[in-house]
Amino acid sequence: MNLPLAADIEKAYEQIKPFVHQTPVLTCKSINEICGAELFFKCENLQKVGAFKYRGATNAVLSLSDEQKKHGVATHSSGNHAAALALAAKINGVKAHIVMPENAPEIKKKAVAGYGAQITFCQPTLAARESTLEEVIRQTGAVMVHPYNQWEVICGQGTASLELLQDNKDLDIIMTPVGGGGLLSGTATYVKEVFPQLKVIAGEPANADDAYQSFRKGVFQPVVNPDTIADGLRTSLGSLTFEIIKKKVDDIYLVSEESIIQAMRLIWERMKLIVEPSSAVPLAAVLENQALFKNQKIGIVITGGNVDLQNLPF
Amino acid sequence: MNLPLAADIEKAYEQIKPFVHQTPVLTCKSINEICGAELFFKCENLQKVGAFKYRGATNAVLSLSDEQKKHGVATHSSGNHAAALALAAKINGVKAHIVMPENAPEIKKKAVAGYGAQITFCQPTLAARESTLEEVIRQTGAVMVHPYNQWEVICGQGTASLELLQDNKDLDIIMTPVGGGGLLSGTATYVKEVFPQLKVIAGEPANADDAYQSFRKGVFQPVVNPDTIADGLRTSLGSLTFEIIKKKVDDIYLVSEESIIQAMRLIWERMKLIVEPSSAVPLAAVLENQALFKNQKIGIVITGGNVDLQNLPF
Repeated sequence: MNLPLAADIEKAYEQIKPFVHQTPVLTCKSINEICGAELFFKCENLQKVGAFKYRGATNAVLSLSDEQKKHGVATHSSGNHAAALALAAKINGVKAHIVMPENAPEIKKKAVAGYGAQITFCQPTLAARESTLEEVIRQTGAVMVHPYNQWEVICGQGTASLELLQDNKDLDIIMTPVGGGGLLSGTATYVKEVFPQLKVIAGEPANADDAYQSFRKGVFQPVVNPDTIADGLRTSLGSLTFEIIKKKVDDIYLVSEESIIQAMRLIWERMKLIVEPSSAVPLAAVLENQALFKNQKIGIVITGGNVDLQNLPF
Repeated sequence: MNLPLAADIEKAYEQIKPFVHQTPVLTCKSINEICGAELFFKCENLQKVGAFKYRGATNAVLSLSDEQKKHGVATHSSGNHAAALALAAKINGVKAHIVMPENAPEIKKKAVAGYGAQITFCQPTLAARESTLEEVIRQTGAVMVHPYNQWEVICGQGTASLELLQDNKDLDIIMTPVGGGGLLSGTATYVKEVFPQLKVIAGEPANADDAYQSFRKGVFQPVVNPDTIADGLRTSLGSLTFEIIKKKVDDIYLVSEESIIQAMRLIWERMKLIVEPSSAVPLAAVLENQALFKNQKIGIVITGGNVDLQNLPF
């Protein structure tokens, strides 16, 4: 399988740079003291649409040919990818067709509609989502943009770590959460080629441990009944992301739901940042394995900040 | 009365620079669209101890003579100034004596104690706070550091706008909230001398409108029964801060409690930043007076992010 290279991520970075926020890297002395390590948080919760997903979606839209742009882009998603693709398309004058389950939260429907996307509602099953998307693509000729298992998307997501390392070159470890694996595989692609001495480590909820199981066994394992508060991490790896992760990631740590909530709360209280549960998973892994991370300099990608303020876990 | 100059704020900046976070300036397209203006948020909620108060406290501690440092610093406060002074003192090896009302929230007592300060509890009245502080100073010889009505504190707070303007020189307006007036007077001191074309405008809760009344009448008016959610703005101006504000501030706008909560929620939801109600007051003023601020480039100092997550107004 042909895998992306660091040069592809550098190319993506040049391409998306005028369209994305260069998000800040923040540190927090009191969290460092609690962990016994030195953490550098790349704040993609402060990215447009509140998530790193905007990088991959923007790169996918900008990589379309002029002919493709005429037909627009399409995806099925009820989460950050839908909003990211809708806004990336709008800003570039491209139509976005989003298939959403009819039971998606009102606030997400509104956000996607607010970015001018064409929404098609469907039954809330994966089969319905996929068949509805197929039909939309058949009718419109739109180009499918997958939330993670796609070259341009992976390269876009990898630019978060590229930016993080621009000003923080002497890290020991880079950590991300892993759901579908777009961010993790993009990160590993860039980091293991340009900073080979750095370890790339993922955190994953123990209650949605498909990436951990797949990584350990070397064979793809789909997620079964993922019951985690980290709603961004309930998906299985894709064929492309798994291939990259298998080859380039150093390790994956599982974390408990309690640790995720504790880490999320620490980031809210100590750093004054609104982060969604998925974002807290790498910090949860550090907190659960303090001896292993002791005194390390760790870059952590904070993936997003889209939470329902009416429904906080604390 | 001898007033500080921009040069004093530049001196404070050089002095505190190694000790404070250079906080990011963030923008938000959707809030800009809602307001019809272009806003640049200087995020002092991401400052150490979660508030701009750390700047003034650090400048006060660093301005002590060696002899004064031996005796430590003292203040009475139940809010951000107490935590700021405690940490600034600790980092510089100086003792901090903090007088707190015995009914202060547990979390604030803990924070101040966690920074190694010596806490003296007193009855929750201003008279008790002042007499207890006097007694502490008599016993220890500590130097009083006022939360706002003090030269070094005002100069420290002014550095937030100095930093904001380093990368955003073509603003039309700078806005801060006003409580005791330390931040507003420091801002006006720097801005009106170095960028005289800029307007300096404050937002104040209508339910705690002493600065507005004092500014309008030209005569100091103390606050009476301040009943506002913006807990950082319930104090009256000081003699020094009022003198500066009277001379250098362009205007003060009053805002309703509803606007404060609405603006706070906008910042939480759209910017993914945890801000305390006081921080939202300038944005509330923009939202209440959209025609006046239309198309203006406005720098806003986000003052702090210390809120009780168990007790949110939304």
